[in-house]
This record gives sequence, C-alpha cells and structure tokens, in this order.
Amino acid sequence: MDYAKESLRLHGEWKGKIEVVTRVPVENKDDLSLAYTPGVAQPCLEIQKDVDKSYDLTRRWNMCLVVTDGSAVLGLGNIGPEAGMPVMEGKCVLFKAFGDVDAFPLCIKSNDVDEIVNTIYLISGSFGGVNLEDISAPRCFEIEKKLKEKCDIPIFHDDQHGTAIITLAGLTNALKVVGKKKEDVRIVMNGAGAAAISIARLLLTAGFKDITLCDRKGAIYEGRPEGMNPIKDEMAKVTNLAKKSGSLADMLVGADVFIGVSAPGAVTTEMVKTMNKDAVVFACANPTPEIFPDDAKAGGAKVVSTGRSDFPNQINNVLAFPGIFRGAFDVRAKEINDEMKLAASEALANLITDEELSPEYIIPKAFDKRVGPAVAKAVAEAAKRTGVARI
Amino acid sequence: MDYAKESLRLHGEWKGKIEVVTRVPVENKDDLSLAYTPGVAQPCLEIQKDVDKSYDLTRRWNMCLVVTDGSAVLGLGNIGPEAGMPVMEGKCVLFKAFGDVDAFPLCIKSNDVDEIVNTIYLISGSFGGVNLEDISAPRCFEIEKKLKEKCDIPIFHDDQHGTAIITLAGLTNALKVVGKKKEDVRIVMNGAGAAAISIARLLLTAGFKDITLCDRKGAIYEGRPEGMNPIKDEMAKVTNLAKKSGSLADMLVGADVFIGVSAPGAVTTEMVKTMNKDAVVFACANPTPEIFPDDAKAGGAKVVSTGRSDFPNQINNVLAFPGIFRGAFDVRAKEINDEMKLAASEALANLITDEELSPEYIIPKAFDKRVGPAVAKAVAEAAKRTGVARI
Repeated sequence: MDYAKESLRLHGEWKGKIEVVTRVPVENKDDLSLAYTPGVAQPCLEIQKDVDKSYDLTRRWNMCLVVTDGSAVLGLGNIGPEAGMPVMEGKCVLFKAFGDVDAFPLCIKSNDVDEIVNTIYLISGSFGGVNLEDISAPRCFEIEKKLKEKCDIPIFHDDQHGTAIITLAGLTNALKVVGKKKEDVRIVMNGAGAAAISIARLLLTAGFKDITLCDRKGAIYEGRPEGMNPIKDEMAKVTNLAKKSGSLADMLVGADVFIGVSAPGAVTTEMVKTMNKDAVVFACANPTPEIFPDDAKAGGAKVVSTGRSDFPNQINNVLAFPGIFRGAFDVRAKEINDEMKLAASEALANLITDEELSPEYIIPKAFDKRVGPAVAKAVAEAAKRTGVARI
Repeated sequence: MDYAKESLRLHGEWKGKIEVVTRVPVENKDDLSLAYTPGVAQPCLEIQKDVDKSYDLTRRWNMCLVVTDGSAVLGLGNIGPEAGMPVMEGKCVLFKAFGDVDAFPLCIKSNDVDEIVNTIYLISGSFGGVNLEDISAPRCFEIEKKLKEKCDIPIFHDDQHGTAIITLAGLTNALKVVGKKKEDVRIVMNGAGAAAISIARLLLTAGFKDITLCDRKGAIYEGRPEGMNPIKDEMAKVTNLAKKSGSLADMLVGADVFIGVSAPGAVTTEMVKTMNKDAVVFACANPTPEIFPDDAKAGGAKVVSTGRSDFPNQINNVLAFPGIFRGAFDVRAKEINDEMKLAASEALANLITDEELSPEYIIPKAFDKRVGPAVAKAVAEAAKRTGVARI
C-alpha cells in the first residue's frame, strides 16, 4: 500500500481523527438544569473548596494534553504548529484505543522555551497529565524539567521516555537470550538526541554500568574539545568513564550491545563482526535502520531489534505511553518518576515467558491486548509505592 | 427537584460531561500506518504547504475552544480556574447537543489580560474558533479586543454577544407585539457589566436610537463626575445623548423599554407604572429577576421576558451560540462580525410568525429544533456576504 497517498485521502475523508462528545443527556429543561445552570454551581463550589475534587467532578481524571510546538514532527523537522496536528490527533487516537485515555491535541505557536512552559502550565489545571510530543532537543529537556517543577501532574515526553522504557524492556530480554548480565555488558549508542539521552539515563538508572554515547564526531567523553553541549557534558560525566575517543566503528570493537537512534546505514556488517560474540543490535533509526536485521545477523548479531513493524522485535511507543498514563491516571499520580518507568519496562519484559523468549521475540507485539493493562498495573503500583499517588 | 444536590450527585456519577473519542479504526498494523506513522507524514506536509489545509485534514474545522480564567463563573465570582470547569464542560455539552460543534474546555490559571491573550493566541492554531466564557468585566472587553487583533479565527464572548443577540431578537418581536418602532422607542437599561454593554452596542448597531444605561449611581452620562470607567465613558458618547441625570426610577418615567442585566428586585411595580403605555420589560437578572413577570404586568407591562425557563420568553443563551458557531464553522469564518450577529438575531426573531406572535411568545423555545439550523444558515450567509468566509 502507498501509505502516504492513502493516508492523505483518508485524512480528507475522516475530517479529523478525534471528536469531543457529550456523556450526559440533554433532552429537556431538567437535563439542562443539572448539567448546566443552575445545578452546575454546586460542583463548582465543591471544587473551589478542594481543588482535588476536580478529579471527581470533571473529566480531568482521564484527560491528557498532547502538546507540541511542531519543531520536531516525525522526521520532518520544524514544520510549524498546525502542520504537526495530524500527528497529535493520531497520538490521541492511540491513547484512547490502547489506554482508554481521553487525549486532546494542542499545537503551540512558539518555539520559545519559557513561552511554551508558561502556556502549558497555565492550562494544566484542566488536565490529569501532559504528554509532550515532537519537541526538538535540547529544548525538550528544558521544557520538561521546568514543567515538572511548576506542575503537580505528570509531565511525560514520550519521544524520550517511552522509547527508553521499551528499549530497556527489549534489552532486558535480549540479555536473557544471550545469557549476559546488565552489570557486565558494554553498550555503545549512536545518536545524542532526546531519545538517545533518555535511553542512556534509564539504562544507568536500571543498573547498566558501561555505556558509551557516540555522535557525528564519534565517542562522547568528558572534556571532548568539539561538538559538546550542556546535555552532552552532563552525560559525559556518567558514560564512557574510560574517556575513550574514536569513531563509532572504533567503539563497537568488543562491544556487547549496539543501540542506534541515529541515521540510516550508520552501522555495517563489518562493524558488527568486530563486536563481542552474541552481539545485540537495536537499530532504531526510522524508517531506515542503522543496519538491516539480515546484515546485522550476517555480522554475527544474535538479537536484532528495529523500529519497524515488518521485522521482529519492533520498538513501538504504543507499547508504553497508553498504559503508563492509564496507570498514572488510575491513581491520580502527581508525576511519572523513574520507579514508574522501570516498573513499566519490567512489566513489558515479563509479558514474555522464558519459554516463549527467542531471538525473534524479545518485545511484545503492539496489538497484544495484555500490554496496556500490565503496564498500567505496574505503573500504578509503583506510583503508590513511591508516594506520588493521590488515591 | 433540588438541582444543586442532584447535580452534585450526578457530576460524581458522570465523571466528566465530555469525552474525547476516536473517529478512525485502530485494529491492525495498516490502520496504525494510515492514522499514524508513516502515513500521517503526508497530511502534515500538505498543511505545512498551506495552513488552511488544517481545516480539511484535522478536526480544526469543527473544534471550538471554550475558555475561562474562572473570574466570573455564573454568579459565583472569581472561584478559580479548576472550579470553573464544570461550567465549561457544560457549555461544551451544549455546543455539541445544539450545534454539533466539538468544543473543548480549558481553564487558565491567570487573571492577567496579556497572559490570557497570549495563552489563547498561542494555541489558536488548533481551533476553528474561541468562545470566551465567564471572564469578568472590564478585562473581558480588552481580552476579546486583543485576541481579535491577533487571531484569524472567530473570537466570541458569549456572555456579551450571545445575550445581546437574543435580547435584540426578543425586543424586535416585542415591538411588533406593541406596535412600536425601533427608531422611536426610548430604552432604559440597568447594569453596566459585560452583557449590558454588549446589548447596548448591538441595539445601536441594529438602529435603535435612544438608550440610557444606568448603574448603581443612576443614569450614565458623558462627564458624570463619579463611578465612570473607560467603557462607561465610551458608552456615554453614544447613549443618553440628552445627558439626563437621575436614578433608575427617574429614567424609567416615560420609557418604552426596560432591559435589566443587573440585580434582583431593582424594579418595582410602581416604577413600571411610570413607563409608557404597553411597556416592554426584560428582567434578566438570574436567578431572581429585577421584577417578576406578574409584578411587571401589574404595573402595565405588555411584554415581559426573563432569564428563567419557568416563565414565558426566556432569554437563554443556548438559542444563539451553538448556531452561531455552527454557521461560522460551516464557512470557516475568520471572525464573527456585527453583520453575523444581526443576522443571527433576525433569524431567531423570524422563527415566530406574525400569527404565532403574542406577549407570551416573542422568543423561540430552547428546545425548538429549528433554532440551531436557522441561526447557522443566517450566520453563514452573512459571513459570505461580508467577505469573512474562507469557503
């Protein structure tokens, strides 16, 4: 199928992928008096007395804001707020279909960090949580950080954390397949954007020890004279502790795991051949991976994962964000913290039993009905355990 | 029925009066590839080339923002953004039920004019129009004005314009009943808030000549030494041209029409007795009118209207805003201008034939199914006629 052509035709037919509907009857005067004036004054007054009542008396408990500034939409770059809307609506569709979360899309006409933060903060009282989407790095880090400080609802940048959670789940199972331990493996990553940084951070939080990040200039190490920025400086303090310098190819020699969130074709069969025995290769550049599965396997890789649905082991964000928000919303969480992310990852990984586990099946399928509920349950429990649940 | 108690109970049961649902199938990989990546990139690129395509390819064409700062919610005053939400959700319910308009509620955590304007402007690309709601005067005037300058979508403050449109419709029909002409009647209004100012402005636009506004200090006239503000100064230039001073009671002597959007009991039977023969009394203070219909009639009033559903001739905003936005959205209007407001009012008035017209029936009923379509048609035509329609 020509997805581009058919999708454009369908979007014209659909005239919007989401719709706001009413949940209450409006058939007569009494209905009006109860859903609207004069009756509605009473729930208003209750919320005025206790703001948390907004979770009981309005849709807030289930409402997620999906928001972008249009600066990093898919692989299309900064295409502007209105043009980002089809993706935002699509995300809302996935929230509803996979997590029964009401999600509403907004596109902000500004690329200024403080203006974006202030706009989202000022409307945050209308939502149970915020999903940041397709905002370019490094602004996305700053926006997320500032919003977390100001808001008392979950702020979640799916491009970072969703990807990280699923990558961790996949890697956990991949290591079971190859019989290696997280404390021992040497990981080389390519890419230093939002997803890469977030993956590295979550892997470190999960107990992985030896990670080296590469960008276009090769290995990132503390004090590298060129091509650094505040985030890379920060990451250089906790990764590549041996301060090795060199190209991605140099780094891959003897590595156990490659994780790419970078560019098509960045890795060759020859490079995989230099990796350790039973190498694990996550080639997540989309739609064309850093290396295709067959080429990676020809180089000796035992487990290969990509972002594509036409190969095994797809890292698909729909595996995480709907269940994560479902779980956070079920307990009215004030935030989505690391423990909740780790719990989501573990729940995902554990859906595949040791008997089912194979090089071709380390990550649950997108349409596996168990995924959303399992992730939600784990996230809700972790929220309670860490004291960020309101109920 | 105890509306307050029952409404609170129901709000707890409803858990939100609106819901965001998906309009597209999400059953398999192909569905995902069309509604989301990779297919969705194509509609994004089309909108990037031509922003107006956002009306074709997303829900924007039918999506109205219902937004408040919680500063003048119902008669409850400044109860804060979250506490205003039940009213905003209720408004969204009415938009959908009476106009098939998707409406989404937002509460802004600020009472600062520029902050509110900037927030709404920055998200305006996601909507086909904006309905301002329950924002206190005089900030509501300034916010509306600034937004109209910045945005290329309809900005409509229903508390002002909706009320004005229906009042004009009712008054048009009331004058038919009493056989008087708009050019000849002397109108006295009580109240100088958002609704009163807007009614006075629209009546003047419609061709009424002699209007006097009163506030707590009596008649407003140019140069009055006390209790003026910029809006009253502006209104004093076009109303009460004789610059009469005195109390509301003084002004009512010999008046043909009273319009109150003020306080319970502001008018007595004795005061109505001093009005002209076949007086028209619109006593719209809610829930307790300036004077009850029986008392007004005892004073000689021929036609009486209130804001209540338990008396004849209810001025109910639901008669206007759903059809107005329906009509504006049908032609993708860039604004809602005076011609569109006058057209809406005329369409409302004309739904009642000369044969049906009576002192007890000058305004269509809220549940009259003809209202929404008639208003929408008139508004859409006026938008085209005045060149503000995109299609």
